[in-house]
Amino acid sequence: MPTSSNDTKRLSELAASKTGQSGDHTFPSLTANHYLSADIFQSELARIWRTQWVYVGRSDELKSPGDFKVLRIADREVLLVLDASHQVGAFYNACSHRGSTLCEASFGQLKSGRIVCPYHQWSYNLSGELIATPRINLGDQTAQLGLDRISLTQWAGNLYLNFDEGSNLSVLDGMIPSAETLNNWPLATLTVGHRVQFEVKCNWKIFWENYLECYHCPAIHPELCRIVPLYQGGMATDYLKSGFKGEDRVAIGIESWTETGQTIAPTFEGLSAEEVEAGHTFLEIYPNQYIVAHPDYVRQVSILPTAPGRTLVTAEWLFDPKVLQKPSFDPAPAIEFCERLLHQDAKVSELNQRGLTAKPHHHGLLIDLESDVWDFHEHYRAWMSDPNEDNRTT
Amino acid sequence: MPTSSNDTKRLSELAASKTGQSGDHTFPSLTANHYLSADIFQSELARIWRTQWVYVGRSDELKSPGDFKVLRIADREVLLVLDASHQVGAFYNACSHRGSTLCEASFGQLKSGRIVCPYHQWSYNLSGELIATPRINLGDQTAQLGLDRISLTQWAGNLYLNFDEGSNLSVLDGMIPSAETLNNWPLATLTVGHRVQFEVKCNWKIFWENYLECYHCPAIHPELCRIVPLYQGGMATDYLKSGFKGEDRVAIGIESWTETGQTIAPTFEGLSAEEVEAGHTFLEIYPNQYIVAHPDYVRQVSILPTAPGRTLVTAEWLFDPKVLQKPSFDPAPAIEFCERLLHQDAKVSELNQRGLTAKPHHHGLLIDLESDVWDFHEHYRAWMSDPNEDNRTT
Amino acid sequence: MPTSSNDTKRLSELAASKTGQSGDHTFPSLTANHYLSADIFQSELARIWRTQWVYVGRSDELKSPGDFKVLRIADREVLLVLDASHQVGAFYNACSHRGSTLCEASFGQLKSGRIVCPYHQWSYNLSGELIATPRINLGDQTAQLGLDRISLTQWAGNLYLNFDEGSNLSVLDGMIPSAETLNNWPLATLTVGHRVQFEVKCNWKIFWENYLECYHCPAIHPELCRIVPLYQGGMATDYLKSGFKGEDRVAIGIESWTETGQTIAPTFEGLSAEEVEAGHTFLEIYPNQYIVAHPDYVRQVSILPTAPGRTLVTAEWLFDPKVLQKPSFDPAPAIEFCERLLHQDAKVSELNQRGLTAKPHHHGLLIDLESDVWDFHEHYRAWMSDPNEDNRTT
Repeated sequence: MPTSSNDTKRLSELAASKTGQSGDHTFPSLTANHYLSADIFQSELARIWRTQWVYVGRSDELKSPGDFKVLRIADREVLLVLDASHQVGAFYNACSHRGSTLCEASFGQLKSGRIVCPYHQWSYNLSGELIATPRINLGDQTAQLGLDRISLTQWAGNLYLNFDEGSNLSVLDGMIPSAETLNNWPLATLTVGHRVQFEVKCNWKIFWENYLECYHCPAIHPELCRIVPLYQGGMATDYLKSGFKGEDRVAIGIESWTETGQTIAPTFEGLSAEEVEAGHTFLEIYPNQYIVAHPDYVRQVSILPTAPGRTLVTAEWLFDPKVLQKPSFDPAPAIEFCERLLHQDAKVSELNQRGLTAKPHHHGLLIDLESDVWDFHEHYRAWMSDPNEDNRTT
Repeated sequence: MPTSSNDTKRLSELAASKTGQSGDHTFPSLTANHYLSADIFQSELARIWRTQWVYVGRSDELKSPGDFKVLRIADREVLLVLDASHQVGAFYNACSHRGSTLCEASFGQLKSGRIVCPYHQWSYNLSGELIATPRINLGDQTAQLGLDRISLTQWAGNLYLNFDEGSNLSVLDGMIPSAETLNNWPLATLTVGHRVQFEVKCNWKIFWENYLECYHCPAIHPELCRIVPLYQGGMATDYLKSGFKGEDRVAIGIESWTETGQTIAPTFEGLSAEEVEAGHTFLEIYPNQYIVAHPDYVRQVSILPTAPGRTLVTAEWLFDPKVLQKPSFDPAPAIEFCERLLHQDAKVSELNQRGLTAKPHHHGLLIDLESDVWDFHEHYRAWMSDPNEDNRTT
Repeated sequence: MPTSSNDTKRLSELAASKTGQSGDHTFPSLTANHYLSADIFQSELARIWRTQWVYVGRSDELKSPGDFKVLRIADREVLLVLDASHQVGAFYNACSHRGSTLCEASFGQLKSGRIVCPYHQWSYNLSGELIATPRINLGDQTAQLGLDRISLTQWAGNLYLNFDEGSNLSVLDGMIPSAETLNNWPLATLTVGHRVQFEVKCNWKIFWENYLECYHCPAIHPELCRIVPLYQGGMATDYLKSGFKGEDRVAIGIESWTETGQTIAPTFEGLSAEEVEAGHTFLEIYPNQYIVAHPDYVRQVSILPTAPGRTLVTAEWLFDPKVLQKPSFDPAPAIEFCERLLHQDAKVSELNQRGLTAKPHHHGLLIDLESDVWDFHEHYRAWMSDPNEDNRTT
């Protein structure tokens, strides 16, 4: 995991290695093939999406035992169920018998307290144990025929899944800068007040690259730049790491990311004065989520790849449940401001993808202001490298 | 071809080999890959669909010389034509010259008594011989430029095609239990009174597996179980083979598979008392058809694969033509009852396919009640095995 | 490039080699695989569409500096721009930075006089040189980061592009019979009065094959045969080359290819009496355009492959700009006559493609009347042959 000081060091070293060239530094980006190739996409599923922790929803989406949620993660489909002891379990949404889909709907309630296969009525308890097989006694085999459990963990009210059952990674390992960044926010107690989901016609890496630099902000996000002066210069946190003397905070007089610039709810208790003044604090959780914590609400955006050129984006606005319940509460100024941002990003992400299909031999470059993109690529290269190979696969 | 006694022996042996395990026996099913992989699908086309006899329609669909029918069988398109001597011929629907489609419509009448290519007007007689090539004399070559004839055979008024011209298989080889099973039905003289065709989003093998067990019947087909007591126990003919002492027949007071349970037409002459009382008699014709003969009508269902996860299903209700002609005859009670069955089967077949895409590494299992599915898989493994290889391809 | 006399010689030799066979001569055509295979299609993109000159539009589509046009050529997307010195440049429609699409619209005007990337506002002048990179000084690198220029040439007001920057081919090399054929037409000064574009469900080679023989004309183009007697015999120019004593011209009393058979505009000055009397003069420009020059107007048709079974067709009707400006001028009789022809050809081209999918092992044949198709295949085999291989790839 790169740290701020390491980053600065690396950037300096890279810069030093470029003596003889005038001008600022650039770094090679990935080749277009990485965003277009079906083979590389399959390799990414195997080496990243099936080995890393992947955000799959809020734990309070499942409130009562038997509540379930079904979602597709690339080439797999997962069933999340709340069991009798209020633990969420994750299973492949397929019966151990002949593989039929277990739950057809995207979410719902298993009223019988069992997961009953709609095909032959094999039944599992909410913990995935096989408890009934009509007209056959499977004896000793029964215990082995429970649903395949997929590793699941919780952090701050969020559920993360890992298809690699033997993984020794922690979800914390994917966090940048680190989980502590949001220590002062009561994330676990917040509730989703608004959720949008849409597909963007771009590779999942383009979505990250777009998020990880603010070099595009002045032209693409004029409303955002009006409330965050740093962004007017195309800079974001990463650039500050490189030694820039600026402040990563909203403008004087601005409180939060909303249409008016003012908070729409009371400031969370426990935030430091700096956190309140900053107006935003960021956490990335590779490979599929970022969180932006504001003084009055939290927004988290997650992605799931569906094809080399298709990515499903989910954005959630989290609020204090007591605030949400107030009849007078109006979240619209926060929702509208950020939905516009998301669609601005989606539009340029699609242009980026289209451009790469225009020139399949393209090999882009990154500038200093995009050093977080370079960091992401370093992560990517590490994920994709096969420990059994001498050379990197990218 | 497995016989009933062999089956029982095998099941016993398999059971014996499982000593040390309590409970009933299970058998491994095919892995999910067999239902999802484009490569395996292509291999199936080559090793099964282009070597076995495939049902393509009723012979009386072509009544007069020049009547034709066009159908697609996976990656090929076939033209069936009735020739001057009332023989049906099967040809690729492509001209010998540059390969243009010969007949555009799905069925019709060649009024000229010739198959005329719409592109350059090369003309073939109804037996596929090239008889006219405008503006060129092809001399000796003409005889070699007739349409490629595809092997075709008839059985009981049904047409079966085999792409393997050197095949020494008989359509009878694909029949289970055997052609004699339906000896007492006047199949060849019956007429299609109703036909439906629809695509099911499942692999063609899932359609067979669903047909070959009644373990799903109690939950999926409540109406059918009401008229066939055996099915209430999830059992079908195959289980009787294993020694179960039950009767594979409709309930006392029930006559046929119709909405009312009563026949809708006179009982066919020539049926034995047992056949009349049973209410249904089954014949499978691998790889693409099954026939259910009732005392008053016959239903046959055939499938054609269109993609790894797509299968075209055609169901035909056959009646005595004299009955069909009666103004007062109402086939609806038979049609509606069985169309509902088909759609119930289609729904769970699609759930089965979807579940396999949820868990691409799934390896299911079969229980005793599904031993006919195991038999089907044994056929499948034999079809797919390459005689030139030491090991089976599955 | 085959010449008329060479052709005749070759045909005679081929005929001689067939002694022992009665009847006229035939030649093997390409196998169905060549029209269906995704692998062969990719190989064609590499060996033909990225090495030959490809028609991309009329030069007067770009009138003022900053006018641009975007088009997709198989797996690439190209931006054509008129620069300050009224030269058209061709570039990949992708920014050198991160590869974003530069121009979103299919055509338009760069009002700023710059090509500005919509993502990060890197700016290029109309010659593709990088002239502004906000917030970074790229120093010496700037000069290397201009847009990748794609070779472009003009002939007779037409623009042709070649992805092979080191190509030593001339667009003239693709012309059959030769550029001189249309010497007497003022092509460069003509203007497009009507343009249609549509996709045909056929391989691009089928489109050429259809164009290159008139053996299909009697049945497919009755209106055309009425005005060109030669075509009533299924013959075209190529057959004349074989020694046929006929005339490749419109019928007595017919002037041009229009609904009435009469010209719709004054005859172009400079045409010879023979050219006027012929009523049509043809030029092929491999691999993607043919031109038919009439006494009163010129029609040019170009193709771009989009998939093994999909081809984009563009047809343009060129007129004297002074004629076009006359309020009384009605081009409809020329447009309607030729659009009908195009759609007749598109229909049989689609039937040809469908027939090849019916019989994927088809290996067609060509007759004498289709010797120009054989010539096209000879070109094709030469394009597809790898100079580094001993054997041809087809």
